[in-house]
Amino acid sequence: MLRNDQLDAWDRESFLHPSTHWGQHARGESPNAIITGGSGSFIEDRDGKRLLDAFAGLYCVNVGYGRTQIAEAIAKQAHELAYYHSYVGHGTEASVTLAHMVLERAPEHMSKVYFGLGGSDANETNVKLLWYCNNILGRPKKKRIISRWRGYHGSGLVSGSLTGLDPFHRAFDLPLSQVLHTTAPYYFRREKPEQSEAQFSAQCAADLEALIEREGADTIAAFIAEPVLGTGGIVPPPKGYWEAIQPVLEKHDIWLIADEVVTGFGRLGTMFGSEHYGLKPDIITIAKGLTSAYAPLSGSIVSDKVFAVLEQGTDTMGPIGHGWTYSAHPIGAAAGVANLKLIDELGLVENAGTVGAHLRAALAEAAGGHPQVGDVRGEGMLAAVELVADRDARRFFDPAGATAGKVVAAMRERGVIARAMPQGDIIGFAPPLSLSREEAETVAGVTAEALKAVLG
Amino acid sequence: MLRNDQLDAWDRESFLHPSTHWGQHARGESPNAIITGGSGSFIEDRDGKRLLDAFAGLYCVNVGYGRTQIAEAIAKQAHELAYYHSYVGHGTEASVTLAHMVLERAPEHMSKVYFGLGGSDANETNVKLLWYCNNILGRPKKKRIISRWRGYHGSGLVSGSLTGLDPFHRAFDLPLSQVLHTTAPYYFRREKPEQSEAQFSAQCAADLEALIEREGADTIAAFIAEPVLGTGGIVPPPKGYWEAIQPVLEKHDIWLIADEVVTGFGRLGTMFGSEHYGLKPDIITIAKGLTSAYAPLSGSIVSDKVFAVLEQGTDTMGPIGHGWTYSAHPIGAAAGVANLKLIDELGLVENAGTVGAHLRAALAEAAGGHPQVGDVRGEGMLAAVELVADRDARRFFDPAGATAGKVVAAMRERGVIARAMPQGDIIGFAPPLSLSREEAETVAGVTAEALKAVLG
Ligand SMILES: Cc1ncc(COP(=O)(O)O)c(C=O)c1O
Ligand SMILES: Cc1ncc(COP(=O)(O)O)c(C=O)c1O
Repeated sequence: MLRNDQLDAWDRESFLHPSTHWGQHARGESPNAIITGGSGSFIEDRDGKRLLDAFAGLYCVNVGYGRTQIAEAIAKQAHELAYYHSYVGHGTEASVTLAHMVLERAPEHMSKVYFGLGGSDANETNVKLLWYCNNILGRPKKKRIISRWRGYHGSGLVSGSLTGLDPFHRAFDLPLSQVLHTTAPYYFRREKPEQSEAQFSAQCAADLEALIEREGADTIAAFIAEPVLGTGGIVPPPKGYWEAIQPVLEKHDIWLIADEVVTGFGRLGTMFGSEHYGLKPDIITIAKGLTSAYAPLSGSIVSDKVFAVLEQGTDTMGPIGHGWTYSAHPIGAAAGVANLKLIDELGLVENAGTVGAHLRAALAEAAGGHPQVGDVRGEGMLAAVELVADRDARRFFDPAGATAGKVVAAMRERGVIARAMPQGDIIGFAPPLSLSREEAETVAGVTAEALKAVLG
Repeated sequence: MLRNDQLDAWDRESFLHPSTHWGQHARGESPNAIITGGSGSFIEDRDGKRLLDAFAGLYCVNVGYGRTQIAEAIAKQAHELAYYHSYVGHGTEASVTLAHMVLERAPEHMSKVYFGLGGSDANETNVKLLWYCNNILGRPKKKRIISRWRGYHGSGLVSGSLTGLDPFHRAFDLPLSQVLHTTAPYYFRREKPEQSEAQFSAQCAADLEALIEREGADTIAAFIAEPVLGTGGIVPPPKGYWEAIQPVLEKHDIWLIADEVVTGFGRLGTMFGSEHYGLKPDIITIAKGLTSAYAPLSGSIVSDKVFAVLEQGTDTMGPIGHGWTYSAHPIGAAAGVANLKLIDELGLVENAGTVGAHLRAALAEAAGGHPQVGDVRGEGMLAAVELVADRDARRFFDPAGATAGKVVAAMRERGVIARAMPQGDIIGFAPPLSLSREEAETVAGVTAEALKAVLG
């Protein structure tokens, strides 16, 4: 172990962390933290402080920390063959097996998987495939993608354009013109308080259809959406939402990309969110839960319909001009195989459903009565507590974010990590799928204590 | 081990490999391969066939296969803490140490590193940083990027636009309008045979300046270039190229991004290509050699000048709205630390220079006299043999690629992997930096045999 002050100096001198205030970090004005270990729902830092991680990293450590089976699979692969590329038909036993396991778990009509590294690059791949397919299909104008405000689909130039959150656009000249945004399916923040959930869902569908008609369906290739809005606030869809949206897409021959980076592999208490909500996507994006983040790996799963076009494409054009050096990286593939097995063995999909429901109930009980709590919501092992300045008037805090940030900091002092979601005063929870009932109660209790400490 | 035919079936049913003919692959019409192990310069497939990998994966396994030290570092990290995120000032001992080690090795004027996963996403980050900086600097129009024809900078929508190779653009609607391309510094394929290298370099600089003046320097943010053209044909710059180019960039206040994904960490016989050619980049892209591909990790190294703007930016705008879940992934960071140590311990930077020179000399001797060999070239541990239909008339094969493809296939039958570069009839060599003199001679000998077998 290096001397603490030396690590600190190196960190501030050399390291540009994501989502960080780079000026303050470099000048030593904001805290940093060196994480050294973890077990189950807990992480530990180099000062020996243990924290219950109720956000599972960035909702990705689905099986929890310190899983020896996955570590051993990684170690074995690292010793046998840490890397060979997967170009022109090459693979490893792990990558081929994982491709098969992914398809076994995905909805019936899905056909094949392209592996990437993270969720952002998987969404890049999706857009490339869309454009390629519509060129092959002879509809060269049908290229733009509709996303939702408050969607999160990545941080690249195109994936960040798909994202519908201001902090990821501001000062980066995003979104690019190839992306359009439609209404966020965020019932709590609806404009018309008198609307029922069903009415609000119908309005979301009408807004989508109006956008399509205004822009021309022949210019729109796809609609991308998370089954449950994640980084935009952890917001399950209002009742009837997907039932209203899907027919609009079908009518205009607009493909559906289900971004299941958060929801894939169990988080909603079902293997996929598509299954949970009866979606019939043409492409599914996967990442986080695929390996529980033990090693980077993502994927784009294409349906039979999409693969038929891709097949026609390479028959006409030759090998596909797309690839990342680390596509289907052996270490990621080995982690993925071990992770998916462990999820089955431990029954984590079911646990996500039952303990997730318990967590939401406990949060509602412990915090729901607080006068500054406007909404307690969630689905499966996802939950959010939304704060408001005035509950009856549905008035939000201004500036947004500061209050949730303080509550989350107070929770951390009390040993629990939650996340202040980036746009609004929303405390987000996405613990490992292996969370226990007792841990869920601890999380709820600490949330209530922190609310009291910060807001009285 | 699974039954061979079952793995084969899963592969064809489920797996979309990069740069592959997806139709043929799915129908079982093209070969596939399961790689099971490797040691030094050799890989082994599941049928027990050993191959000397003279392309080091995709010029990335710089330390060679089967390095126990790196495998152990990965295993140790996987057991201690496979993942925690690096957002808002979080890190691990490995990621902070690696940031420091990268900066120790980078040119003196470089300041800090942002970690990504692969070369493509690192170039995405670079473009985001450029746009952000020019917004902060109050020059909102200065956003486009000039790349070179035959450059390779990735496979995403923007990184693939930076790439200047037709197979990566065709049918994908690339390049996007934010990217412009200028003359490839490819002396062997110059238009005017009578030009000396110095004259050709002067012309490249004049072409660049004409493009800048035509488009307006106030619309151009940066110029991106590999120190040595890689995937575009493994082409070292003509004499005087960088000396002619850099003043043009300085004059118009256009930043230089040195894409050192291939050249970083020793491939040219120097730690960086920038050092090799006296470049003063504002941003350096790193990937492959950073971990020798043992785990995915890339980076964007920014200079003091760039960091000053980023600091001003976050002081004005708050935390940077950019991040990948797997930025600075602990497994990649642990692999990187062990890899950079190993490169030093084994003296691989020096070996790349000396054995690389020996490889080029051996190739020139064994293959240079063949009537269909137009050029033998390279730098450090990079080499290429370019084939021509007619040497004296400098006439190329039509269709391009098929002949090199056959030679490379004949080499593989003889136990050596080289790469048919994607645009032209160019046989590429980029072995591990640990290649021995004897292995270099084997590679050259097999190349000559294969040329004779295919072309007589
Ligand atoms: C739904 C969704 N899609 C895509 C991404 C981007 O994934 P990554 O950060 O791995 O690039 C995320 C990350 O949080 C996500 O939540
Ligand atoms: C110079 C250069 N830049 C960027 C890339 C893209 O890297 P990746 O394939 O890891 O996305 C490559 C890959 O070959 C490269 O050679």
